[in-house]
Amino acid sequence: MKSKLNIGLIGAGRIGKVHGETIAFRVPEASLVAVTDANPEAAAALAARCAIPHVATNAGEVFANKDIDAVLICSSTNTHADLAVQAAEAGKHIFCEKPIDHTLEKIDRALEAVARNNVKMQVGFNRRFDANFARVRQSILSGEIGTPHLMHIVSRDPGPPPISYIKVSGGMFLDMTIHDFDMARFLIGEEVTEVYAAAGVRVDPEIGNAGDVDTAVILLRFANGVIGTIDNCRMAPYGYDQRVEVLGSKGAISTENQYPNRAVVSTAESVRRDLPLNFFMERYLDSFERELREFVAAVVNDRPTPVTAADGRVPVVMALAAKKSYLEGRPVKLSEVSNGGQS
Amino acid sequence: MKSKLNIGLIGAGRIGKVHGETIAFRVPEASLVAVTDANPEAAAALAARCAIPHVATNAGEVFANKDIDAVLICSSTNTHADLAVQAAEAGKHIFCEKPIDHTLEKIDRALEAVARNNVKMQVGFNRRFDANFARVRQSILSGEIGTPHLMHIVSRDPGPPPISYIKVSGGMFLDMTIHDFDMARFLIGEEVTEVYAAAGVRVDPEIGNAGDVDTAVILLRFANGVIGTIDNCRMAPYGYDQRVEVLGSKGAISTENQYPNRAVVSTAESVRRDLPLNFFMERYLDSFERELREFVAAVVNDRPTPVTAADGRVPVVMALAAKKSYLEGRPVKLSEVSNGGQS
Amino acid sequence: MKSKLNIGLIGAGRIGKVHGETIAFRVPEASLVAVTDANPEAAAALAARCAIPHVATNAGEVFANKDIDAVLICSSTNTHADLAVQAAEAGKHIFCEKPIDHTLEKIDRALEAVARNNVKMQVGFNRRFDANFARVRQSILSGEIGTPHLMHIVSRDPGPPPISYIKVSGGMFLDMTIHDFDMARFLIGEEVTEVYAAAGVRVDPEIGNAGDVDTAVILLRFANGVIGTIDNCRMAPYGYDQRVEVLGSKGAISTENQYPNRAVVSTAESVRRDLPLNFFMERYLDSFERELREFVAAVVNDRPTPVTAADGRVPVVMALAAKKSYLEGRPVKLSEVSNGGQS
Amino acid sequence: MKSKLNIGLIGAGRIGKVHGETIAFRVPEASLVAVTDANPEAAAALAARCAIPHVATNAGEVFANKDIDAVLICSSTNTHADLAVQAAEAGKHIFCEKPIDHTLEKIDRALEAVARNNVKMQVGFNRRFDANFARVRQSILSGEIGTPHLMHIVSRDPGPPPISYIKVSGGMFLDMTIHDFDMARFLIGEEVTEVYAAAGVRVDPEIGNAGDVDTAVILLRFANGVIGTIDNCRMAPYGYDQRVEVLGSKGAISTENQYPNRAVVSTAESVRRDLPLNFFMERYLDSFERELREFVAAVVNDRPTPVTAADGRVPVVMALAAKKSYLEGRPVKLSEVSNGGQS
Repeated sequence: MKSKLNIGLIGAGRIGKVHGETIAFRVPEASLVAVTDANPEAAAALAARCAIPHVATNAGEVFANKDIDAVLICSSTNTHADLAVQAAEAGKHIFCEKPIDHTLEKIDRALEAVARNNVKMQVGFNRRFDANFARVRQSILSGEIGTPHLMHIVSRDPGPPPISYIKVSGGMFLDMTIHDFDMARFLIGEEVTEVYAAAGVRVDPEIGNAGDVDTAVILLRFANGVIGTIDNCRMAPYGYDQRVEVLGSKGAISTENQYPNRAVVSTAESVRRDLPLNFFMERYLDSFERELREFVAAVVNDRPTPVTAADGRVPVVMALAAKKSYLEGRPVKLSEVSNGGQS
Repeated sequence: MKSKLNIGLIGAGRIGKVHGETIAFRVPEASLVAVTDANPEAAAALAARCAIPHVATNAGEVFANKDIDAVLICSSTNTHADLAVQAAEAGKHIFCEKPIDHTLEKIDRALEAVARNNVKMQVGFNRRFDANFARVRQSILSGEIGTPHLMHIVSRDPGPPPISYIKVSGGMFLDMTIHDFDMARFLIGEEVTEVYAAAGVRVDPEIGNAGDVDTAVILLRFANGVIGTIDNCRMAPYGYDQRVEVLGSKGAISTENQYPNRAVVSTAESVRRDLPLNFFMERYLDSFERELREFVAAVVNDRPTPVTAADGRVPVVMALAAKKSYLEGRPVKLSEVSNGGQS
Repeated sequence: MKSKLNIGLIGAGRIGKVHGETIAFRVPEASLVAVTDANPEAAAALAARCAIPHVATNAGEVFANKDIDAVLICSSTNTHADLAVQAAEAGKHIFCEKPIDHTLEKIDRALEAVARNNVKMQVGFNRRFDANFARVRQSILSGEIGTPHLMHIVSRDPGPPPISYIKVSGGMFLDMTIHDFDMARFLIGEEVTEVYAAAGVRVDPEIGNAGDVDTAVILLRFANGVIGTIDNCRMAPYGYDQRVEVLGSKGAISTENQYPNRAVVSTAESVRRDLPLNFFMERYLDSFERELREFVAAVVNDRPTPVTAADGRVPVVMALAAKKSYLEGRPVKLSEVSNGGQS
Repeated sequence: MKSKLNIGLIGAGRIGKVHGETIAFRVPEASLVAVTDANPEAAAALAARCAIPHVATNAGEVFANKDIDAVLICSSTNTHADLAVQAAEAGKHIFCEKPIDHTLEKIDRALEAVARNNVKMQVGFNRRFDANFARVRQSILSGEIGTPHLMHIVSRDPGPPPISYIKVSGGMFLDMTIHDFDMARFLIGEEVTEVYAAAGVRVDPEIGNAGDVDTAVILLRFANGVIGTIDNCRMAPYGYDQRVEVLGSKGAISTENQYPNRAVVSTAESVRRDLPLNFFMERYLDSFERELREFVAAVVNDRPTPVTAADGRVPVVMALAAKKSYLEGRPVKLSEVSNGGQS
């Protein structure tokens, strides 16, 4: 038995660096053996930082490396699905950043390749591994709050991304709400059958000019009768706002934001604290470590990954349905968009 | 100038007692001079308790009393509108419990009589006077959180009322959500144009058998683009749950529940506190006093009442639209139901 | 049986008004039948406000009134003991504001008269009736936190009183800490045997010039081994700060301050709330009502009062010991000052 | 310039492992080049875990290693001072776990060697680097709360250590309160001149039989007039309790405990959360990383260490004074014990 799982990293941008450093410094059960990036300097810099022995010129070189057991696909979204197909064909286990793609066709091709080659795939819905949300899931699983009735997710960014990013993002539902769609399914442990989205441009007219919205509420109907809401905004002036609340037959559970400290200052003006953690890499740092540990453990122990390939598809269906609901001003069933051809 | 405003109390049931005791013991600017109730013993008991000099045999006797300046209509809902008409015809100012009626026809008759006789009318949306919600309204008015974008109201009862009450309640939207519809308008200071209601029976199948729902989310579109949600349930196992949250362009404001004490107990099992106030008369005690003080002040100083007759009509329109939305599974514009004939 | 307990009010100043209005408007089991004050206008004004039928020219007139069952002694501290003696001789039950006196001799004369005439006496340590502190006491009594080990009281005023008041106050320990000394005994249910006081002038040098301190920590040793601390300051810039915390063998209990609302505002600067209640009459309003209801109930039902005459003496002993400790820079046993001659 | 600071680790026990893993995985600016431990297997295991190239047979071998720039002294307390002397003589910079020793003589010998050999020394008061306490210190430094008046430290362990440990611990003041003595100086930025300690055996009589106490309050007088209290107990049933509170002329700052999550569960029984972090390695994990990063930075950049050798001496003086105060039942000035010969 090899002592460590050998990993190839594809993409050394923002999230690639997070995952690379996590594997290098926080997951002793795995080793990074190669890294590649469209920008060779980025790959080289990360290799130096994390002592990665090999800088590959492209992803194909990584897939061809016989020493590599698994790959982390952290490149731009439009490349995820094709890379996943190639990785699967090469017999590599796959950790793929979310979303797999913006279209169901490409997602389905990736899922088919994964299934056919019998490799494992985990999609990067890291928030499931956050201690707060994991606690909520545990509460529902254990029956602590009884049968769930209502769920409310607040998910607001500290500020909007650049307009250039908005234009290629696929729209707020696919880019931002996608995490919340996954969270909704994860927490309730049931599928959503219908969504109704109300949305608008409140933060920046340029976002509207780019054909997107920046503020939305999405109402979810679950197959088991639970009603959920997702409250999204591209800008929360006080910082990153990430909370959930579930009401059940025996009680409720809710979570608060994470703060850099727990100090409270009382003066003649107010009783106040510092702002919550402002950046997803601070807020979700621990979750990135936990998701990769779980991925490595799933591969090493030949267990199912905790966020499967199928888990990567459904939130895209939900996002497409939400977009359709917003455009048509009516509730939309997921079955209306789930069979392809709609993008 | 008379030293005190003379008040006649119509109805000595649960809410009649609250208002009677409030006037008697907490509003020195007013005096109760007569009380009447369908149950003469209830009227007599309250008269004894609050030193009310006259127990009238019926409402007509109260309206005929020349010493009386204003009446509090606290009888059963189906009598509100007719009594308001009679009171207006008699020239009495009116404080009327919510809702004025379940039908717009009767509400409009009452409003017409009030206008024609030039008396003041205040509708009993007491929650506006709660210190928490008043603080939220002030925050929006003052610009503290900038332009509002999103609003979320949580309004859950500690447990469902008896099925016998459910059957005559007009349904959850008219009976329970009515307060939240008023709160939404009050907080945002703008009208709602469209509602979408998702609802179900989660708490007690008997409520469903009675033709009602017990759990709902109502999505609100305001004329100014704000998107709101109301989260309702007839049962919160931990007690009365009454909170709001508003996100604006410069910040957010949210409120917590009220508790009987601020003690926190930490043991080997948990860090915990006692349950929130469980009963609306405890939770909203102060608001009942404030609304009556404001009513008395409006009459004495000939100012508009803080919750006008028109404010009593709109939430009924919203409730009727929400019911229609629930039944038809689509968003409903208030204009679809606001002109009568729909009930 | 008389329907109500007839009460005479001695003193119509700040606290006299609080108690007068409480009896008039919130304690239906009692009636105010007479009021007197060194300032006749103050007495007349309160009589008008609370519908008190008789304004007496002096306390003796109140004591001579055969209709009066009990008196509330709310005059200046230096008159408490003599008035209590006279009231007891007249057979009136006594509610006396704290402290009974600054000297043990006068206190002991009052206690002797009370005992000899077999009247009831309650001393105005209202904080025992506050919902927060009552909850802490209940926690200890019920065993919820096991055997108490450590107790910490924070008691800070929003700002210092006028220097003219400081000069006649008896000093901070007798004037301000006296409430905390009572709270310490009440919460732990045990006597303190030794105190050690560290104190200084931090807030205003004029307080030092007047021979007093404005900031102190008093360490308490209880007979059962519990160690307590009292943290006092004449000025908390954020408002009235009144908290306790007790650690026991099975857990801990702590209380927070009371706030005018439970709203939290989050902006780009901070996550904040409004300041706590700033004035003792707001913060302790409910406790004033509860203490008088309990006094009335104790008299009517011939039960011991919840804060006995003896409970009025011990905190004065503790204050005298704290002062001695501060002056001599050493721990002082209560037995060193409890037998008179020390003031 | 060498790319990394080379470090030798002396001691591979509990805290040695913490520091070793921190350097290996979280401080890229430093490398572990050797480790030694009285138990060679512990050293070998840690070397394997952290890829430390050399396992030394004893500390002398580490000191003789020319490649090593600095050492971490993590062995048992009674060896700290001698090892520090040897390290200093060998020209190695020193990070030494607290306390340097239980006697001032040995501490002074170590400090003298450090000064004479012009090496840097940092003492392991890691709590200074905790985000909460650092925020409090910043608040005082920045003037946010004005001039400090009162300080309160709560420091309670989740449970007592084994009696065998108690017996060699030097007593609670030297073993446990030592951290709080350092915290007091750090927060206020001023020296304590006098202490008064009240203490007892509340948790376990065996601790008393071993000649120690398990519960204490220590009152501190600072040179600038600030009055402080430290509230210690060997057992808080709800977990590790680590809080501070400071009142100043313009406001107050207080900190809460750290929790594994921010979820709140509301049921028919209570509104509760999970227990706070229970173990110092969880609670202070980040602080261990920060203190070593700062040590490495101080050596690399030739700056003073943030916790100096002198900072390691004063808390021992305070502990000796507290013990003397406890034994003699009187306040004790630090000058009474600070010149040696007293232990």
